Amino acid sequence: MSEEDAESDEHGTSGTVDEYGSSTDGERDDLEAVVAAVRERIEPDAEERDRLRSVADRLIERAETAATDRCPDADVMQVGSTARNTWISGDRDIDIFVRFPPELDRETLERYGLEVGHETLPEGHEEYAEHPYVKGTVEGFDVDVVPCFRLESATEIRSAVDRTPFHTSYLQARLDDELTADVRLAKQFLKGIGAYGSDLRTRGFSGYLTELLVVEYGGFRGLLEAAAEWQPPVELDPEDHGQERETASPSRSAEVGDADLPFDDPLIVIDPTDPERNVAAVCAAENVARLQHYARRFLEAPRAEVFESDDPDPLDETALRAHLERRGTTPVAVRFEAPDLVEDQLYPQLRKSLEGITTGLDDRGFDVFRATTFADDAAVILAELAVADRPAVERHDGPPIHVRSHADGFYEAYADDPDAYGPFIDGDRYVTERPREFTTARGFLESDRLFDVGLGAHVETALEDEYEVLVGDEIATLCEAFGRELARYFEPQP
Amino acid sequence: MSEEDAESDEHGTSGTVDEYGSSTDGERDDLEAVVAAVRERIEPDAEERDRLRSVADRLIERAETAATDRCPDADVMQVGSTARNTWISGDRDIDIFVRFPPELDRETLERYGLEVGHETLPEGHEEYAEHPYVKGTVEGFDVDVVPCFRLESATEIRSAVDRTPFHTSYLQARLDDELTADVRLAKQFLKGIGAYGSDLRTRGFSGYLTELLVVEYGGFRGLLEAAAEWQPPVELDPEDHGQERETASPSRSAEVGDADLPFDDPLIVIDPTDPERNVAAVCAAENVARLQHYARRFLEAPRAEVFESDDPDPLDETALRAHLERRGTTPVAVRFEAPDLVEDQLYPQLRKSLEGITTGLDDRGFDVFRATTFADDAAVILAELAVADRPAVERHDGPPIHVRSHADGFYEAYADDPDAYGPFIDGDRYVTERPREFTTARGFLESDRLFDVGLGAHVETALEDEYEVLVGDEIATLCEAFGRELARYFEPQP
Repeated sequence: MSEEDAESDEHGTSGTVDEYGSSTDGERDDLEAVVAAVRERIEPDAEERDRLRSVADRLIERAETAATDRCPDADVMQVGSTARNTWISGDRDIDIFVRFPPELDRETLERYGLEVGHETLPEGHEEYAEHPYVKGTVEGFDVDVVPCFRLESATEIRSAVDRTPFHTSYLQARLDDELTADVRLAKQFLKGIGAYGSDLRTRGFSGYLTELLVVEYGGFRGLLEAAAEWQPPVELDPEDHGQERETASPSRSAEVGDADLPFDDPLIVIDPTDPERNVAAVCAAENVARLQHYARRFLEAPRAEVFESDDPDPLDETALRAHLERRGTTPVAVRFEAPDLVEDQLYPQLRKSLEGITTGLDDRGFDVFRATTFADDAAVILAELAVADRPAVERHDGPPIHVRSHADGFYEAYADDPDAYGPFIDGDRYVTERPREFTTARGFLESDRLFDVGLGAHVETALEDEYEVLVGDEIATLCEAFGRELARYFEPQP
Repeated sequence: MSEEDAESDEHGTSGTVDEYGSSTDGERDDLEAVVAAVRERIEPDAEERDRLRSVADRLIERAETAATDRCPDADVMQVGSTARNTWISGDRDIDIFVRFPPELDRETLERYGLEVGHETLPEGHEEYAEHPYVKGTVEGFDVDVVPCFRLESATEIRSAVDRTPFHTSYLQARLDDELTADVRLAKQFLKGIGAYGSDLRTRGFSGYLTELLVVEYGGFRGLLEAAAEWQPPVELDPEDHGQERETASPSRSAEVGDADLPFDDPLIVIDPTDPERNVAAVCAAENVARLQHYARRFLEAPRAEVFESDDPDPLDETALRAHLERRGTTPVAVRFEAPDLVEDQLYPQLRKSLEGITTGLDDRGFDVFRATTFADDAAVILAELAVADRPAVERHDGPPIHVRSHADGFYEAYADDPDAYGPFIDGDRYVTERPREFTTARGFLESDRLFDVGLGAHVETALEDEYEVLVGDEIATLCEAFGRELARYFEPQP
């Protein structure tokens, strides 16, 4: 995915233009050719469409019958990319929303929803997001049957799923065949660079966000050209809701600039169906930057590979040791049984724990060079240290000597302490040098003080149960389960 | 000098009161008894006084004859502590100032000054401060014969020596026998705690400053009691010159507080003879704090020892190694031939070099734990490191990716660099990890990059000539020449 192998690129058609040369007609042709080839590949063919249509229609009919049996005023709507024709060939998600009138109480809605789900998907099982819903597989398609309220406006929603039908309606009204094809390209591009998906592991671009961006910029290429020049915070407001917000908060003025932007995100796309919502709220700065990076590279030297996510080859122990040798750092890892959570819960907890543990290491002088976390059955917090050992003493700055009550207390506390050097005077303060609690990172990680740092709740529980600390070459044992993650870490790409 | 050995104190009379108990009559008696004993010991007896008087009178007469031979309007004045009877028994300085009328041009003053000096001190030699002057030894006394201008007011002075006669006149008018004895005590106390002397090695309390403080606080004990409670910045203005300054700068008001104090020093004593001068300008924060510390301890538990400077026993190699073992730090030292400078020039240069080298070490990740400098024939910059080694790579944060011109340049620079990891994306920036210039403190200290840091001019020249880097146990070789300095460093006292 990086530019380094551009010259050995078998599929690209970048020819002889300079990698960073200005745009030329030749390049434009290259780009069109690459895009056309990808577009062809990812577009569902007639057979795929027909098959999906027939399965979806059958399920919708079943759901409608089951729903109106219970509530005559209910209706059923297909949502998501397969409803909008923006799915990528091979995607197999059918999302069916069963809409009940808002007068229904929530308990009844949930009960009806599950009953309709089970009648629609007799083999299905229940899952739980904001509402419980039924999920199942039908002829190879992954089908969700989700109940929601049918509201007049998305601003009245009671849970996130109520918003989805509005999104589908909004986009269906704006997507023509050309834009639909470009949405597919944009999604595939984002998948290729690892920035697609609003799940909390990826923190990238959701499908809805991608579709809005393509509509807003008039196509895939327009999106790339705009993204290449983005100056975050970037605010897009397709339905000019900002006007309303400005009226609502008259204090906003030109002088304050971005200071009172209602969202503190690098990319802000005001939901056309709900002015209070940033569709890109989940999108991390890394993924905005990543899109900028790859958009620029692609516009300059179009390559089909960028549309393919390149899972790296797993790093083997020999390669890992070579990296450690070359880097001269000391990796430390905390390995424990991964809490039994969905990724949307697990990864925020892992990140919080990573932040807590690296802060705990840094605070104790074990300088963290870089760090990451990953999980499958086991979870790992990996911190690569620039400093893994500290002296036996640490400096302890006391109060200014002129603050007599504190100063006298400090002096008394240490003057007769045989383990402390000093107190002596530095500037206007007392200073002592006293034994350091942890002289090795391992000592800290293996101690109970590890639990003083901020940890995700389930991670903390898992650590209380059992964990293992790996230092230096010992992390080679992670290669078997986490070779790809280690490859991504030790051979980092944009 | 520390409180730790108070119990084994043979000379003190602190009896059974708590070390930090409140003041009692018993303690007050202790204090008076200790002070009386010291006072007795440091007061020059009649014989010492007579001998000094007779030598001084003889020299003054000689100087007067030589001066008026050349300039009938000249006169001669004895200055300094031996003129004011504030010298401590055993001090042997006689300072004779030859005052010429201000109409004299400077060249003539200097010529006359040297001629008078040589006639007064036939065995003397010339030295140079702001003026050249003659220095010599007469019957065991160190005698300076210094020319200056006789001015109406100290504010008209042309060089620092012109001010000295005003100081002597001011103090002579205010010192009675009791205060004179207390000045001696205060000087001896400051000597004992290592804070006496306005030379740029000590950066402590000058004789004149000490005398002013004793006058201001009405005695030795008053000074200690005041110092114990000082809240720096402390401003004393014996002649209320502040009044004049306030008139001169009407912007000064209660609201600005200390903000426009004309001096940025912890202790400010406006020279009674010159409102523009802080007599304590040279006095470092450490020495102000030191006086506060020892004043409190002495008032609480009076001990005669505090009046004796306790040069520590030299640290031997075994003790040094034991400290290094216990501390787990890595000392590094740069040893070179001491530039041939007087201490007032040498120590500021050594301190500047210490600051430069420790900053250079810190900037490269070699965390400095504590550091010092000392010199006799050789000079040493000693830095004790908490981190003496760094990994082979260092992190290099690039520009934000949205700053396209910088970002593209950064990416191009590193994308094909086989020595660099990345560029990858962290937050909104590119990051690379590239080879670190120095992985050991020794590598840096032995490189030419040492000369990129701020060094005293003569130190830089000396280093260009030759220097040696000592690391870890190698500093044991310093014990022979610098055992006391190393003892002060490794067994630090307030």
